[in-house]
Amino acid sequence: MRTNLSVNGDRLWSTIMASAEIGKGPKGGLRRLALSDADRDVRDLFARWAKDSGYALSIDRLGNMFVRREGTSPSLPPVLIGSHLDTQAAGGRFDGILGVLGGLEVLRTLDDLGITTKRAIEVVNWTNEEGARFYPPMMCSLAFSGAATVDWADDRTDKAGIRFADELARIGYRGEAPVGGRTLDAYFELHIEQGPRLDAAGVRVGVVTDGFATKGMRIEITGETAHVGPTAMARRQNALVAAAHVAVAIDDIGWRYAHAEGKTTAARLDLWPNLPGIISERATLFCDMRHPDPAELEKMIAEVATALPDCARRGRCRVEIAEQWGFGVMGFDAELIGLIRQAAADLGEATMDLKSEAGHDSYNIARICPAAMIFTPCKDGISHNEAEDTTLEETLPGVNVLLRAAVARANR
Amino acid sequence: MRTNLSVNGDRLWSTIMASAEIGKGPKGGLRRLALSDADRDVRDLFARWAKDSGYALSIDRLGNMFVRREGTSPSLPPVLIGSHLDTQAAGGRFDGILGVLGGLEVLRTLDDLGITTKRAIEVVNWTNEEGARFYPPMMCSLAFSGAATVDWADDRTDKAGIRFADELARIGYRGEAPVGGRTLDAYFELHIEQGPRLDAAGVRVGVVTDGFATKGMRIEITGETAHVGPTAMARRQNALVAAAHVAVAIDDIGWRYAHAEGKTTAARLDLWPNLPGIISERATLFCDMRHPDPAELEKMIAEVATALPDCARRGRCRVEIAEQWGFGVMGFDAELIGLIRQAAADLGEATMDLKSEAGHDSYNIARICPAAMIFTPCKDGISHNEAEDTTLEETLPGVNVLLRAAVARANR
Repeated sequence: MRTNLSVNGDRLWSTIMASAEIGKGPKGGLRRLALSDADRDVRDLFARWAKDSGYALSIDRLGNMFVRREGTSPSLPPVLIGSHLDTQAAGGRFDGILGVLGGLEVLRTLDDLGITTKRAIEVVNWTNEEGARFYPPMMCSLAFSGAATVDWADDRTDKAGIRFADELARIGYRGEAPVGGRTLDAYFELHIEQGPRLDAAGVRVGVVTDGFATKGMRIEITGETAHVGPTAMARRQNALVAAAHVAVAIDDIGWRYAHAEGKTTAARLDLWPNLPGIISERATLFCDMRHPDPAELEKMIAEVATALPDCARRGRCRVEIAEQWGFGVMGFDAELIGLIRQAAADLGEATMDLKSEAGHDSYNIARICPAAMIFTPCKDGISHNEAEDTTLEETLPGVNVLLRAAVARANR
Repeated sequence: MRTNLSVNGDRLWSTIMASAEIGKGPKGGLRRLALSDADRDVRDLFARWAKDSGYALSIDRLGNMFVRREGTSPSLPPVLIGSHLDTQAAGGRFDGILGVLGGLEVLRTLDDLGITTKRAIEVVNWTNEEGARFYPPMMCSLAFSGAATVDWADDRTDKAGIRFADELARIGYRGEAPVGGRTLDAYFELHIEQGPRLDAAGVRVGVVTDGFATKGMRIEITGETAHVGPTAMARRQNALVAAAHVAVAIDDIGWRYAHAEGKTTAARLDLWPNLPGIISERATLFCDMRHPDPAELEKMIAEVATALPDCARRGRCRVEIAEQWGFGVMGFDAELIGLIRQAAADLGEATMDLKSEAGHDSYNIARICPAAMIFTPCKDGISHNEAEDTTLEETLPGVNVLLRAAVARANR
């Protein structure tokens, strides 16, 4: 491998900072929900950059964007690298974005250095990784992997009842390409850690060996509206109270598994009519459970099922799990991990093995091809927060590892 | 008292059913939030009815509407009767409306029968009794009583941040008349019971002797946004979880006082950002506590204060009572109650003494003049629900009691 093989850090940073201008949050982060105007604007910018560099751009029916730098053997399955450009409602400037724009920087660097690869390298921007507006998260890479249908994704709705398909068409990113159904040689995803370990240890390259098993749930609670005054306690069916019992029960389960890195989140609660003076009739609670060990996660899920009847009884409401989804990965590809370790060694860069506790599109893509992830540090482990931060110095080694691993794989 | 003194039931019912067409809810009730377009429309209708009958209409700076049928001694303080035309988000067709339109029917009946009264009788529509959009409830009768300022009311905001004063101007009901500051001879309010006792006993006239002591609270909870995945349980500050602990604690207090008719409601919970994938940073919980005995209510409030630190500890958030408001009445006026009992007796109608568990504008007006309330049955005690229902047959005796008591007082 050429020893001068390294990306242009200043150019990389300028693209990340240009992205950070689109959908700015009040505290310096980003609010760029999937299929919002801001999402459209950053997609337009990404497409323009691809076009300016002469790369082919393909957009599939779910808006997943693939930027392709052709290889010398175009018929071979490509190496795919990427992540997502959408953010949380109050998200940071790096989560996902680094993986896409780091990928773009890899392609541009190969142009600068006049390097051709045998296989094409593609950079993907997955639609709606965050799931902050349309849930579940990673739904478009899930469909790409064949584990969900396009129709199912099209029919997801946001809080306002707007359909995914309609909003995708509105922003002009309902592409022509089929979703998935093609062979990939490998998938690499570069991402900030979203946890504190690299930052605390002063290590700049994380080798992701595994991903926490995760289960998401939508729990529906049904009570009855009534006047808060004359309605005796024994006659109430307050959906807010039943939901509160569920939220406490979910949180308690997290604490019981916390010793082994298990965790639970009562994440979102929608109530109706949610007004003073009236008892709420309906509650929808979104919960999340994670554990490094899938068998332990199953126990946590069983504890939720056990807890719900008591929550229903105490809140005097009907409580049911209306929908569930899961993600996680049982180990990333050993060969790709080997390429990542080798690239870091060639750069003289220390690495740390990590399990990802967040969800990533790589979990879905690992179903259909070898996949692996590289983590870079984020300050104090803060993510999904506008204060999410990192530096070029902390980030650059990870991008160079991506470059070298992707090139090595693309020349296979 | 003339024995033929009774209202026109068909006309009364036709006005109530005309009102029920304005702001119809999906289940046959009403969604007529204060200062909404529907509220404007029903105000316009009420104003037109007043004008068509030749009554003077005065609108004060908070939009309280006063329809006046002049007496033979115009300089004497008037007898005021009324209630409110706004509803809950999913409210019924009678709550408040019966009191206003029953009042209008009293005036029209006096015209029909050619009866003059010594004092003027006025019918009031109080703005924003429900507090469903702008809290607290009954804020405009509170200002009328002098216990709150117009500026304070003007600055109340709804969930969207819209100011009360701006929305009042938008619907064209920012009147010229000063708020309060004038002498009233008496205030009568006719209202459906909003509880099951009259309906269950088959009694059609309730004599309201007292109103439950009530305390409302806005509790603010502050945590920190973070990623639901990599953030260890011990590092979380989930405002939703802390709010859930508070909601459960508030509900538990209600159960401890339920044996003596005490009750609590965790009524409304607003969360931010309230999305899956991210831990919520802020929660606002609106609670309500009621007890027939003000001393017991104080104990309940003290229990809330005692419970909050533990909720804060378990949810790892800051929890504070940001705002409180209260209402209630220590007994209605004995003389007015006497007139009500006498009117019922003259009609041969059985009565039941009741304490009101709901809030009413009459509590505020009782601060500045003699006040009393008449209750009529509502089916199964259901209220603040679109299924709220009653019949003319159940309602008519209460309206005739109002007519007779108001005329008796107006001729004093």
